[in-house]
Amino acid sequence: MTGDVLFRRIALIGTGLIGSSLARAIRRHQLSAEISACARSPATRTRVVELGLADAVTDDPGEAAAGADLVVLCTPLGTYKSIAERMAAKLKPGAIVSDVGSTKQSAIRDLDSSLPAGVHLVPAHPVAGTEHSGPDAGFAELFQGRWCILTPAAGTDDRAVEKVAELWRRVGSKIELMDASHHDKVLAITSHLPHLIAYTIVGTATDLEEDTRSEVIKFSAGGFRDFTRIAASDPVMWRDVFLNNREAVLEMLQRFSEDLVALQRAIRWGEGDKLESLFARTRAIRRSIIEAKQA
Amino acid sequence: MTGDVLFRRIALIGTGLIGSSLARAIRRHQLSAEISACARSPATRTRVVELGLADAVTDDPGEAAAGADLVVLCTPLGTYKSIAERMAAKLKPGAIVSDVGSTKQSAIRDLDSSLPAGVHLVPAHPVAGTEHSGPDAGFAELFQGRWCILTPAAGTDDRAVEKVAELWRRVGSKIELMDASHHDKVLAITSHLPHLIAYTIVGTATDLEEDTRSEVIKFSAGGFRDFTRIAASDPVMWRDVFLNNREAVLEMLQRFSEDLVALQRAIRWGEGDKLESLFARTRAIRRSIIEAKQA
Repeated sequence: MTGDVLFRRIALIGTGLIGSSLARAIRRHQLSAEISACARSPATRTRVVELGLADAVTDDPGEAAAGADLVVLCTPLGTYKSIAERMAAKLKPGAIVSDVGSTKQSAIRDLDSSLPAGVHLVPAHPVAGTEHSGPDAGFAELFQGRWCILTPAAGTDDRAVEKVAELWRRVGSKIELMDASHHDKVLAITSHLPHLIAYTIVGTATDLEEDTRSEVIKFSAGGFRDFTRIAASDPVMWRDVFLNNREAVLEMLQRFSEDLVALQRAIRWGEGDKLESLFARTRAIRRSIIEAKQA
Repeated sequence: MTGDVLFRRIALIGTGLIGSSLARAIRRHQLSAEISACARSPATRTRVVELGLADAVTDDPGEAAAGADLVVLCTPLGTYKSIAERMAAKLKPGAIVSDVGSTKQSAIRDLDSSLPAGVHLVPAHPVAGTEHSGPDAGFAELFQGRWCILTPAAGTDDRAVEKVAELWRRVGSKIELMDASHHDKVLAITSHLPHLIAYTIVGTATDLEEDTRSEVIKFSAGGFRDFTRIAASDPVMWRDVFLNNREAVLEMLQRFSEDLVALQRAIRWGEGDKLESLFARTRAIRRSIIEAKQA
């Protein structure tokens, strides 16, 4: 390791929005001497080469991970277990395995059992993204000013945790350490439920009669378009989020549904005071978000 | 009327986000020789003068409307009836009364009965806005490239409709003519339901235990913050929208709830295929919105 180079070799398993953004940020800030990448489709591998995102690219997670000091899974959550199995034998002693997935209990469950002794698991979740997917959608500034949540198990090597934290700090993120189950609960309300609701309402609109549907597109500026942006996020990634954070999502969904029924009832019975007081209350949380510079 | 001046005097009843944006756009495009404004609070009237939004400002809708060729109501829907009653006697023969409200059947119901014969009612709804309120929040470009929907009753004077249409064209909008009940149905899904859902989820988050709530703010970039923006919209305006478009909103809410229950069930039973196929389907509508330049 020379100068500011944090790792001699980083392997990125998956080069979509997050993986390719991380590759660009690692290059820009010179955080690794080498980047090896793994991508399943030939088309993606071609783009990774054309975009200069990695020094080597392969479709074999084991080959990409071999000799890496840090391996970061940037693939949908449903792939973790088989990727861990495929690369386990190739990991060098002392290597750190991390990820960028949106649910952390499942990440630990699917990775931990397959990793050999002497390899450090430091799960991470950069809370950043856009509705675009693929290696062309990434950009080096994606993580700037955003939070990255680390959820290492108790007893994880401190130096390994610190090296992953430092990587994310260098690409512009703020670090938070959290218990995996608490992470999954917080993200269920801040991210998973909003996506589920956005997918639902856009689906509801899609099912309207043909003439109304074309007008929905035309007049989407009234609020609907913001939901369509969220509902344009990667389908496989989000399928896996809901399958892997089921309990917390269902719990938050239950609370949301109860609150929605209460509002529905207030509308039906013309209870203007109830509506107004809820609508006034929600403004405060927006102000807090603006003050926290996350708007 | 000289040159491009469309109206000798326009009266704006209400000078919030929409009213003050319209005042700015009328000034910029020189669409009226004079603007008179009506605002209920002394603080708002002071700002209207300081910002130079009107030639005269009063708290009396009748005084503002007197002598105007066009009167535009830019106040919450719940105020329409009493404003119409207060200004009826002052309206000059041949004057046009319009509005910018988000529900059109109720606008017609509340205005039409109070207006004297010889006054033309041309209801309008500019589908544009931000989450900010008040005279300082407005800007002249707000209506640029957005739709303005006119819902005049059958038999309304064609020249009156055309003059209102021309006003909105000159401030940059595209015009759509629509039946009021159809308007209310389309907007229920494109605007009213999205706002209701955003208010609900932000309320649900507000009710979480204190420690989780502060983290909701911190990690809002995962999707939640987009909802908080929508849920920061004016509480009184939105209360009145829901009270005045009850049937259409409840109908769309019922459809949405059924779809949400179906997704909930798919999550509970781990039906990944169902989730993925819905999530893939909703991407198409986003593409249509981008193509329609409403993104």
